[in-house]
Amino acid sequence: MIRTSAMDASDKPAGLEPINEQECLYLLGLRRLGRVALNVDGRPQVFPVNYALSGRVVAFRTAPGTKLANAPMSHVAFEIDDYDSTTGVGWSIMVKGVAYEITEALDHDSVEARRQLVQPVAPGQRDRWVAIRPDEITGRRFRHHG
Amino acid sequence: MIRTSAMDASDKPAGLEPINEQECLYLLGLRRLGRVALNVDGRPQVFPVNYALSGRVVAFRTAPGTKLANAPMSHVAFEIDDYDSTTGVGWSIMVKGVAYEITEALDHDSVEARRQLVQPVAPGQRDRWVAIRPDEITGRRFRHHG
Repeated sequence: MIRTSAMDASDKPAGLEPINEQECLYLLGLRRLGRVALNVDGRPQVFPVNYALSGRVVAFRTAPGTKLANAPMSHVAFEIDDYDSTTGVGWSIMVKGVAYEITEALDHDSVEARRQLVQPVAPGQRDRWVAIRPDEITGRRFRHHG
Repeated sequence: MIRTSAMDASDKPAGLEPINEQECLYLLGLRRLGRVALNVDGRPQVFPVNYALSGRVVAFRTAPGTKLANAPMSHVAFEIDDYDSTTGVGWSIMVKGVAYEITEALDHDSVEARRQLVQPVAPGQRDRWVAIRPDEITGRRFRHHG
């Protein structure tokens, strides 16, 4: 606690520290809620989703609607973040890739993703699955000073 | 508390309840951290940002980089959300619009936004301002059952 406060109060120049993919995957595995960004008629929209991680694949459940009509076969981004206002330490992770509908896919990651119970953020019947196969998983950690 | 639990445990069909713009603006005014989605070469990316609200305008500070190179004069989306895992009640709000750099803009909303102290999520010198002038502000509230 004291150490964290000391780090926070440090006068060293603040910086962004990259988080490597292994740690990104570890952090992705700890969370359940993220946000997916996708284009609708070329314009971005963002939606909160509960997700599961299988290997490097991020999967979420949905129902017919905006996400299912626009995400599959398109480039999307998925993001999780955290910020502790007490310590001033935060991080964010972004998964960029192409989304696919995997409702009936038989590959290992898809089957594994569907096995994990993902509670959709929105209620109602949501038995369609979308997976994001990442081109890139990046993260950064930041600290506030002062 | 009891009332919330009873609502949560209700057997009524779960649904998405729209949040009107007035309440969206109220909720936007209570928060400081959101996520902005923007296209880079036609592909969405998402970044956490600390923001200020001035009228209907969402503004954030940034430094030269991905956001400043890609957001201004383009369609972006900004999102905040909340989820209470105890009650199963959550909501999300999305602001869709065009981003403009307002670092030196003299209109009322820009001046007012810059007056508000917005602590950038990432550290370092971030003295450029970007505003999102909304085409649409939408929100929805959801409840989980079971």
